[in-house]
Amino acid sequence: MRLTTFTDYALRLLLVLAGDPARRVTIDTFAADFGISTAHLMKVSVVLGRTGWVETVRGRNGGLQLAADPTTLRLGQMVRHLEADFAIVECFTETGNCLLAGACGLETAMASALDAFTRELDRVTLADLVRTSPGLGRLPSVQVISGPASRRGKA
Amino acid sequence: MRLTTFTDYALRLLLVLAGDPARRVTIDTFAADFGISTAHLMKVSVVLGRTGWVETVRGRNGGLQLAADPTTLRLGQMVRHLEADFAIVECFTETGNCLLAGACGLETAMASALDAFTRELDRVTLADLVRTSPGLGRLPSVQVISGPASRRGKA
Repeated sequence: MRLTTFTDYALRLLLVLAGDPARRVTIDTFAADFGISTAHLMKVSVVLGRTGWVETVRGRNGGLQLAADPTTLRLGQMVRHLEADFAIVECFTETGNCLLAGACGLETAMASALDAFTRELDRVTLADLVRTSPGLGRLPSVQVISGPASRRGKA
Repeated sequence: MRLTTFTDYALRLLLVLAGDPARRVTIDTFAADFGISTAHLMKVSVVLGRTGWVETVRGRNGGLQLAADPTTLRLGQMVRHLEADFAIVECFTETGNCLLAGACGLETAMASALDAFTRELDRVTLADLVRTSPGLGRLPSVQVISGPASRRGKA
């Protein structure tokens, strides 16, 4: 059982940006540092921009920057929004053609379990994740382009 | 977020077999009825045989048959056993190489959510699923080869 790569990349990006509210990251450096697809990350940034969670700052010190309050962004809320569908089994998809679809107890059981999964994730905010992620402190410096407002004094 | 196809097929097979403890299903007819891969289903039947949940009955009226008590088989227990890994995000895999692996709060949060997911599934047994699956009553008759012990009077 796995979250989509889209959600995985989006959560990593949000976590890195939330590590320092003044942190700005370009798609190219983030993709290079994490060894992931630039094209895929571009799509992620567009969706995160639409939600208002991330904004793109133009100019020399530009890049992606957190635009939401990490203390109000809940993990379950983010995952529910980012997962294209919660098709835990085939019958959850529009194209699913299981012989038992619509008349199988598995659908209800899986729906309840997915609900329990996201409810558990909702107990954690993006700010909580930053506090419990020491890895954010040892990110490659090349990845970070701090703007004038940076608290990290790199302006 | 999706269970593996392996788990999906295994759950369908267990559900169909549990629909009638005397029901025997051949891999070919099951694969044809559900429009799924025979080769894939063969691997599923081998694993279900090893667990002792399903047995293969040889002979003219042979086929796969439920070998476990459906009232004691819990859905969460089945899913935990059938999912190759519970790699909800990359860092859960042995080959994962996320920059934050081992120092990211997401791992703990996801592990707790997965636990909540399977705990919820454990509230349901295979027997419960049969009771809440009217679809089992309208399976193609060709799919079923009932043995002498069949309660469906087809011997």
